[in-house]
Amino acid sequence: MSELYLKSKLAFESAKKLAIKSSSEKCDALKRMADALQNSHGAILKANKIDMENNLELSKALKDRLLLTPERIDKMAEGLRDVASLEDPVGREIYMTKRPNGLKIRKVQVPIGVIGIIYEARPNVTADAAALCLMSGNAVVLRGGKEANNSNIAIARVLRSALEESNLPVEALQVIEDTDRGIVAEMVKLREFLDLIIPRGGAGLIRFVADNATVPVVETGVGNCHVYIDKEADLSMAKNIIINGKCQRPGVCNAIEKVLIHESIANEFLPIIYKELKERGVLVKGCPYARQFVSELEMAETVDWETEYLDLVVAIRVIESLDDALMHIDRYSSKHSEAIVTSNYFTAKRFQEEVDAAAVYVNASTRFTDGSEFGLGAEIGISTQKMHARGPMGINELTTVKYVIEGEGQVRCE
Amino acid sequence: MSELYLKSKLAFESAKKLAIKSSSEKCDALKRMADALQNSHGAILKANKIDMENNLELSKALKDRLLLTPERIDKMAEGLRDVASLEDPVGREIYMTKRPNGLKIRKVQVPIGVIGIIYEARPNVTADAAALCLMSGNAVVLRGGKEANNSNIAIARVLRSALEESNLPVEALQVIEDTDRGIVAEMVKLREFLDLIIPRGGAGLIRFVADNATVPVVETGVGNCHVYIDKEADLSMAKNIIINGKCQRPGVCNAIEKVLIHESIANEFLPIIYKELKERGVLVKGCPYARQFVSELEMAETVDWETEYLDLVVAIRVIESLDDALMHIDRYSSKHSEAIVTSNYFTAKRFQEEVDAAAVYVNASTRFTDGSEFGLGAEIGISTQKMHARGPMGINELTTVKYVIEGEGQVRCE
Repeated sequence: MSELYLKSKLAFESAKKLAIKSSSEKCDALKRMADALQNSHGAILKANKIDMENNLELSKALKDRLLLTPERIDKMAEGLRDVASLEDPVGREIYMTKRPNGLKIRKVQVPIGVIGIIYEARPNVTADAAALCLMSGNAVVLRGGKEANNSNIAIARVLRSALEESNLPVEALQVIEDTDRGIVAEMVKLREFLDLIIPRGGAGLIRFVADNATVPVVETGVGNCHVYIDKEADLSMAKNIIINGKCQRPGVCNAIEKVLIHESIANEFLPIIYKELKERGVLVKGCPYARQFVSELEMAETVDWETEYLDLVVAIRVIESLDDALMHIDRYSSKHSEAIVTSNYFTAKRFQEEVDAAAVYVNASTRFTDGSEFGLGAEIGISTQKMHARGPMGINELTTVKYVIEGEGQVRCE
Repeated sequence: MSELYLKSKLAFESAKKLAIKSSSEKCDALKRMADALQNSHGAILKANKIDMENNLELSKALKDRLLLTPERIDKMAEGLRDVASLEDPVGREIYMTKRPNGLKIRKVQVPIGVIGIIYEARPNVTADAAALCLMSGNAVVLRGGKEANNSNIAIARVLRSALEESNLPVEALQVIEDTDRGIVAEMVKLREFLDLIIPRGGAGLIRFVADNATVPVVETGVGNCHVYIDKEADLSMAKNIIINGKCQRPGVCNAIEKVLIHESIANEFLPIIYKELKERGVLVKGCPYARQFVSELEMAETVDWETEYLDLVVAIRVIESLDDALMHIDRYSSKHSEAIVTSNYFTAKRFQEEVDAAAVYVNASTRFTDGSEFGLGAEIGISTQKMHARGPMGINELTTVKYVIEGEGQVRCE
């Protein structure tokens, strides 16, 4: 029996107990977890120091993700308290009908059961994901990146000690310590105990999980996001949206990766936006047509249109019509967030209706695709798939439903 | 390029056009399809006759499922008109918020895309599934049982000819004619074109699909349903519910397969229910304890507790407490429909809350788990999984969502 199997079994057995805990019991546990984190800076920072020393070869960006500081630990604790303040979806009645035969049928939100989360070397996810799963009544099996393993184990120890003093079953929170790469392959097939797998990470991880899982999966986070600047766009607004989408946080999934510009404004707009982006250190690529307007653009290859750069790189294509923009997006979009800048009502309407993505924007930055920006509270990821949940996935999306039917002896006759 | 690949590609390409059709265009197409079925008795019955002649070896029940008559074709047409009368979920706004920054965020129901249905030799499913998918704006690829292939092809020809006269793209309805068994294995991995697979059939098919699919799946229909007769049950009500659940239509997924009886009423109730079931031709099995009360019971083996009989067979277990009943159900339930008969408020409440199933009944027959009995309209199946949809799956569950965000140039600053 592997560690994964045993811990998943414990999570599975605890899930039934957790599912019927009240909101205040869950809320109390999360607050205890938050307090415990703030009272355990020393142990967590010590473990994190080992991770940092073991991973000197990581890029600066990855090291920054891995690093914990007292402030960051306090922020994790704050995140737990934020989740504790969310309205508990469990038990919420989302449909009710009384049938002609007197049967009362209610559709009620209930926890999913056991959720497996596979993520990269970001120790804060250990606390965030635990909080979101527990608050929605789900047991959770966490499998983080090996670089953060000491940090994850230390955080889990703190959170579990808090759970032990709460009314929630401590076994509902499991962290897999084995860093063998084969664990992921085993985990995505563990239908016996896991009800859902959420991979959080790069396109490679998500593809591996989707191709190999027999446990249901919610795919998250790959964002090859476009903004289309229509011929009737307010160009100053277009400029702001592109700069915000590309430069504010280039490493995130809702950043803009591609800009489509209508040919009738390319002559005026392309030199302006090129200059602005270049000043901010962005590498700007362009299609051959775009390079007729700004010859300094680097040549964009086919692979560029498919790539989520997650960096200060953008590719610009000049197109001839809204139809061409829709076709380009349809072909290359990862269906995360897509935007149009236009002043034309009908153009906006067509874009809204015809673009197939989790979030479709008119005259706003794609950077808003986020649970808290949408007013949904904290999120466990942005679903880019169509089944179960799409877009920011909060505690509401970590539930399923059951029908509860009350009768007085009704039987069916047909 | 296989037939499956080419037809799925055509469906995929048509899905974008279909997704933006209005309710009245979809409704009109379904009515044309209904009319066409009623005007094509001859061609359909002729094809069905070939299927019947090719499958003389089938059981009586399966032959009855395969057989079409003029009345049954008219009933299929009626089913299409019923679906056309349902409220179109596409475009329905299910959440709206205006954020402090002025962004208007709407969560809107949209079609899923292309749905693949894998089903057995039941030609009526060809029309039903086509209607439900098209009405919810989805293209559909149908793969029915080989025994019904001539019937399915004839029905599809009729439905497609009606689509050609409508405003919907005819390629949105595809029937796979190749009866090679390998098609299913190919179909469940066709992520390029299919957004969802719904297997409708026995446990073997569903297991195969779940184990092999990379396309998302909604599992349907396996129902190892229990009724627990509590010590405080109204025994006359209990008798009616058992007889209705077991005998009214034993071959369906919401039929009762197992009866759990509290020991304190077993002496009174078991002989009564045994006699009633026996009179109706039911083979009644029992655990050793149950056989102490009625020695004529056949011995139930472990495999019985796991089996969905789909026949006039039932297994009875006498148990000592509500906890034992909950444990038995937790272990053996297929999470479809579970019932309790009790007059005790707290016992009912615990059963409702603790049983994990799509439908949990108090004092009513499990036979009501059905889209139309629940007031949801026609259904494409009963989901026994937790992701995306659970319980009867109608046109509402054949949609996903997208967020549509309207701004006036908002960008994110944090």
